[in-house]
Amino acid sequence: MAFDSQSISDSLTAPQGFRAAGVWCGIKAFDPERNPDEKPPLDLSLIVSDRPGPVAGVFTANQIVAAPVKWCQERIRNGTGQAVVVNSGNANACTGAQGVTDTQAMAEATAQALGIAKTEHVLVASTGRIGHPLPMTRIHHGIAQAAKSIKNGTGQSHDAAQAIMTSDTFPKKYASEFPWSTGPVRLGGIAKGAGMIAPHMVPPPAAEPHATMLAFLTTDAVITQPALQTALEQAVRHSFNGINVDGDMSTNDSVIVLANGQAANPPIDAADSPLFPKFCRALTQLCEKLAKDIVLDGEGATRQINLRLSGARNDEEAEIAVQAVANSVLVKTSWTGGNPNWGRILAALGYSSAKVVEEKIDLAYSAPDSAVRVYSLRQGRPVHTPFEELCSVVGLKSFDLHIDLNLGPGQARLFTCDLSEEYVRFNMGDISNPESLGG
Amino acid sequence: MAFDSQSISDSLTAPQGFRAAGVWCGIKAFDPERNPDEKPPLDLSLIVSDRPGPVAGVFTANQIVAAPVKWCQERIRNGTGQAVVVNSGNANACTGAQGVTDTQAMAEATAQALGIAKTEHVLVASTGRIGHPLPMTRIHHGIAQAAKSIKNGTGQSHDAAQAIMTSDTFPKKYASEFPWSTGPVRLGGIAKGAGMIAPHMVPPPAAEPHATMLAFLTTDAVITQPALQTALEQAVRHSFNGINVDGDMSTNDSVIVLANGQAANPPIDAADSPLFPKFCRALTQLCEKLAKDIVLDGEGATRQINLRLSGARNDEEAEIAVQAVANSVLVKTSWTGGNPNWGRILAALGYSSAKVVEEKIDLAYSAPDSAVRVYSLRQGRPVHTPFEELCSVVGLKSFDLHIDLNLGPGQARLFTCDLSEEYVRFNMGDISNPESLGG
Repeated sequence: MAFDSQSISDSLTAPQGFRAAGVWCGIKAFDPERNPDEKPPLDLSLIVSDRPGPVAGVFTANQIVAAPVKWCQERIRNGTGQAVVVNSGNANACTGAQGVTDTQAMAEATAQALGIAKTEHVLVASTGRIGHPLPMTRIHHGIAQAAKSIKNGTGQSHDAAQAIMTSDTFPKKYASEFPWSTGPVRLGGIAKGAGMIAPHMVPPPAAEPHATMLAFLTTDAVITQPALQTALEQAVRHSFNGINVDGDMSTNDSVIVLANGQAANPPIDAADSPLFPKFCRALTQLCEKLAKDIVLDGEGATRQINLRLSGARNDEEAEIAVQAVANSVLVKTSWTGGNPNWGRILAALGYSSAKVVEEKIDLAYSAPDSAVRVYSLRQGRPVHTPFEELCSVVGLKSFDLHIDLNLGPGQARLFTCDLSEEYVRFNMGDISNPESLGG
Repeated sequence: MAFDSQSISDSLTAPQGFRAAGVWCGIKAFDPERNPDEKPPLDLSLIVSDRPGPVAGVFTANQIVAAPVKWCQERIRNGTGQAVVVNSGNANACTGAQGVTDTQAMAEATAQALGIAKTEHVLVASTGRIGHPLPMTRIHHGIAQAAKSIKNGTGQSHDAAQAIMTSDTFPKKYASEFPWSTGPVRLGGIAKGAGMIAPHMVPPPAAEPHATMLAFLTTDAVITQPALQTALEQAVRHSFNGINVDGDMSTNDSVIVLANGQAANPPIDAADSPLFPKFCRALTQLCEKLAKDIVLDGEGATRQINLRLSGARNDEEAEIAVQAVANSVLVKTSWTGGNPNWGRILAALGYSSAKVVEEKIDLAYSAPDSAVRVYSLRQGRPVHTPFEELCSVVGLKSFDLHIDLNLGPGQARLFTCDLSEEYVRFNMGDISNPESLGG
């Protein structure tokens, strides 16, 4: 495809003028003396641009919003940013006035340590346990350490990707570029999230309600702030807002993009720049890769399902219908069993508030990227597909489910996973170890 | 309480003039030759009154409705009934024109076997696998068998309660009576359901979308059909519609009550009968007992939670908020772990479409029937309750969770259960045994 960007190595620091680091400062429990051979669990990241530039963001639509999210919503309105500080292990959510003070202190310490003129140019994010005050002494120590490694050139974007992880089993990080006459424009990003994933992020201020997922993106494009915000909203709609692990929307979901203009391309403006569609496409592709990794890393997930629904009366109802299917624990557990139980899917469609008519519904499975659809239902009636044939698709590690309501032009896609015994075990928590109990 | 009805023995046949039976006719797999010492799994019930009388019913609000539900919705409009035939093991849902024909054939065979003058006086219900035609030869044989045992007086209401079970581990059945000058008025009932339980039943025709649960009730009260329907709707609102196992609403949920007037009490009429509140109260209590048993028997459930929410802006928002909490897999799995994770509860409240304000929320646990509330949050802030104290309540087999939004007069209650590894295992199904795969 002509618009496709090319993957390149590295992540946050692939675009010119960005640096990043990740350190362990003791928010996550670890005893170096008892585990002399283990690497400590990184828990604090810094991302910084050599100079301030446009910043854009989208945030959780949950009515209960963590202190750092409120801070970022305010900063994004001003439109300029230069750095992001992120801690994992503590969400700084439901922490009242103390949480607000601590967020500001994180921004101040970061500005000071990195020599950033304005505290407001520092974005802040947190993820982890809810309802506990941040261990600020440790955080101050972490910011100082991370800033030091950025200044002395030892900071690694790989460590930054590690340090934002909570229940994640692998870091999520990508970079890409697309060519232009003035030289390549580059984008980079990292993300985290494995549970409490049903993001529905909206521009600030949050307008309506929906996991903790975090993503931080960098680009050296020359772009106006409104164009950057528009591009981000488009990209998120087709990526992070199109995934679902467990239907639980977090209080901390945030995606933030920093642009510093060092690619020296002709300025990208939403209205008329020929570069804008190219940039949007590259940003969307980057977000899609990061979002896909979150579902691949879904807590306890054993299968990934690409849900494609068409024929709803409109796109809004398509989205409602597809969410009802992805949120049904009976549907999700049947997938874990490799069990092509379409009855539960129909029941979920039927209790959604989207209009469905039993006699019109087509339902088919396919292997990923396969044109061969194995139909369970045509016009609401079972097709005599051998059970073994259905099981051979639903037993795959990844498969596509196509639902056509045959009522109208509405479409939606959702990338989701199953619900396994491992998910339950993990989220039961271990009450003998309160620190493990998570968000 | 003056209005309390007294429990009595038996169930469906406690009211005068009702008979019931349950048989095995081969819808559920069983090989008597290979299991000579086991009782076969009963799968067909008949309930019959000596004479026709008022019938009332409420049915699933799912848009996808099984053939027997459509049949009953039509019959209830006529207002008169005399018998109910129920099979388990096959839901007769998503079975098209064949399903409609088979339902009518069940009613006809029942009318004929029991000597009922009008086929329309026979209600029909089915529960089990979705999308498979009923094995009509077996069903005809079962109806004949059951009718025979009713006629020769060997039919047992206990067998009728057994024969409607699917994943249930025990039959649900109760009876009660309240005194009147003309003699006692009696009520009886049976119910089934353990998974796909999030009923939201409405009068026919279904007006809006939501498990398979079935309940069949009998009474010898003299009551008009409109009064019976009103009493049933009230009773269901405070019982079956107030439970939730897994958030999945079925295509077959039905509650049907038959009245035959043999108690010879002064006619109960909604408008002015002094007996009406007494009858409503007795019917509600009966339904509450049956509904509670469904949650106690929830698939894989290890704890029951009595959710009480107050302070919503109105009752509708209270219901939305309480459902969001009960449907959160993160909240449910933390309960399984005996883990008093209030952060997940706040997140669920926050993404519900009910208005919540973090700084106003109180959240407390208590042991059942205990006045001692153990607070986690007051006005959105953690209370310094020792973690062990919270765990001692959430570790109980049954506990109450009190949420006060402190915004208005809206209230709601929901009786729900946790989500265990056993639930997942059970609902994964065993694809090597397609008959086990359920609804």
